[in-house]
Amino acid sequence: MIRTLQWTGEALRLLDQTLLPTQTVYVDLTDEKQTWDAIKRLVVRGAPAIGVAAAFGVYLGVRNASGDVMGRVNEVCDYLATSRPTAVNLFWAIERIRKVATASSTDQIKQNILAECQKMAAEDSAICRAIGEQGYALLQKLPRRDDGSLGLLTHCNAGALATVEWGTALAPMFVAHERGMKLSVFADETRPLLQGSRITAFELQQANIPVTVICDNMAATVMSQKKVQAVIVGTDRVAANGDVANKIGTMGVAILAKHFGIPFYVACPTSTIDLSLATGAQIPIEERAAEEITRGMGKQTAPTGVNVFNPAFDVTPNELVTAIITEHGIAQSPYKDSLRGMLRTDR
Amino acid sequence: MIRTLQWTGEALRLLDQTLLPTQTVYVDLTDEKQTWDAIKRLVVRGAPAIGVAAAFGVYLGVRNASGDVMGRVNEVCDYLATSRPTAVNLFWAIERIRKVATASSTDQIKQNILAECQKMAAEDSAICRAIGEQGYALLQKLPRRDDGSLGLLTHCNAGALATVEWGTALAPMFVAHERGMKLSVFADETRPLLQGSRITAFELQQANIPVTVICDNMAATVMSQKKVQAVIVGTDRVAANGDVANKIGTMGVAILAKHFGIPFYVACPTSTIDLSLATGAQIPIEERAAEEITRGMGKQTAPTGVNVFNPAFDVTPNELVTAIITEHGIAQSPYKDSLRGMLRTDR
Repeated sequence: MIRTLQWTGEALRLLDQTLLPTQTVYVDLTDEKQTWDAIKRLVVRGAPAIGVAAAFGVYLGVRNASGDVMGRVNEVCDYLATSRPTAVNLFWAIERIRKVATASSTDQIKQNILAECQKMAAEDSAICRAIGEQGYALLQKLPRRDDGSLGLLTHCNAGALATVEWGTALAPMFVAHERGMKLSVFADETRPLLQGSRITAFELQQANIPVTVICDNMAATVMSQKKVQAVIVGTDRVAANGDVANKIGTMGVAILAKHFGIPFYVACPTSTIDLSLATGAQIPIEERAAEEITRGMGKQTAPTGVNVFNPAFDVTPNELVTAIITEHGIAQSPYKDSLRGMLRTDR
Repeated sequence: MIRTLQWTGEALRLLDQTLLPTQTVYVDLTDEKQTWDAIKRLVVRGAPAIGVAAAFGVYLGVRNASGDVMGRVNEVCDYLATSRPTAVNLFWAIERIRKVATASSTDQIKQNILAECQKMAAEDSAICRAIGEQGYALLQKLPRRDDGSLGLLTHCNAGALATVEWGTALAPMFVAHERGMKLSVFADETRPLLQGSRITAFELQQANIPVTVICDNMAATVMSQKKVQAVIVGTDRVAANGDVANKIGTMGVAILAKHFGIPFYVACPTSTIDLSLATGAQIPIEERAAEEITRGMGKQTAPTGVNVFNPAFDVTPNELVTAIITEHGIAQSPYKDSLRGMLRTDR
């Protein structure tokens, strides 16, 4: 089985997701700089997986420290927090590590941090499984296609490889497949970095779930042909009002879903909900290099010197979100109340 | 100046558009098989350009014929009509050639065909210029961005390289730029074959019109940021009720434009209007090879053996079309009446 990340006892072992689906290569990270780079370059990606990777990154940066260990913890935490801006799980995980880094001895601080990383990884797996169960209950209520299958569309990758295991948006699909539900999944390829065709299609194919790759601009067509009964996506940050930041293109899919009367679901752990931000307008949106678009697949596909706009995320307004699936249950509008409820259950 | 196609006296010289924007290579076609292949492989593309190229292709297939020349004309016409199914200009041009291929002598038939090809090419240029003038009048009425510029979004390429000269969707931009209007154009890259980033961005850059390349899935973001005051696209076939077939992804853009209250314009010569089809549901939609998506840019970007859906066009329902810009004027809803009016002017 392919694993997103694991602790070897010496290093954080990551699957290099930039090489999928043609190569399955693992890299061992041994310090915080390598971890920062792996997050930045999308060797590891997906909000929950980034969080866990960053937590281990703190440990890697601290394990050889002596003297002012607490100072070093803060330094490494601050550094790793600069790797990517949008997914709140990164900051959530770093703060969680910062909090446990208190003990009388240097060794105990280091042990606390490593233990918290391992706890976080184990929890993530259980949380994603719970999201799968919650989402499956929703899927059971949906109408089916004429052939008895349920047509789903997803954007980017919010699968096992975006988390420690199971995924968020894909977790309900894995559970449904286990229970014998016939699925037909459309994976938007998700330009520019093609996480949909490279990673989601790969995961679903491995799990024997029927999947069809489409270009992002074909989503309207498959919806108009009634091949899709629901959209499920992940998210990098949910604001208190239910606005949802996710991979660029998600808002467009949500608008199409509304147009065609198709429910639009967002799946995430409660750690992705950021009640400190009133609306999605406050979520920082990462812009990435033009070359991801103009030379995305190794070949120049736009004229030299042309202007490029490359936002990595967009914010889907809450009114387009049918429900948010968390490990604790399903939040619906008004999200201001329902999201608080989800978090209360957690504490 | 880069030319889509020209008659050398011996051959049909085409710019090989599959190699843009990094290489400017011309190919000389000398028979109908080469012409069929050039249309199929998108060496030449764009509904009006395909029509003119096919017309010359008939001449290339007939010029050395002896004996039953009329039989040969029909054979070549039927053959070239199988190259691509969606753009009606292909069939319109072929039928136009078939009609002039009547004379007492073999030589006269051949001369008639070549003369009609050259007339068609000259007409296309004048028609596109007229579309530019008609569209410019529409653009003048639109609100502007805070910096005084007019933000436009286009999908695929309906520029000079989709026609003999000037283009359809881009013609109003070229005219507006000539007249000193400040433009800011967003070019959807247009997966899978990237006609937007490879060709539209190239044409606008050559003309010094500010252009920004975006991935298709970023259109909703630039619209939500009020960077776009209108969408203009071309079309491969317009049904009698105003349903519009165009490059895959166009319907999605139209739905987004409606959501954000942005006018959605379609520009085409009246030869693209097919009154024989009551609705867009009757327009044949070409499906193309999976490899265009999975190996589109020379590198494998989806797992081996995965299902792929690759429709080359979609049909935008007439209720999403604000207006259709033709060389004879602007058609608006109800299109059943207004499109007939456009064609009557022509006859």
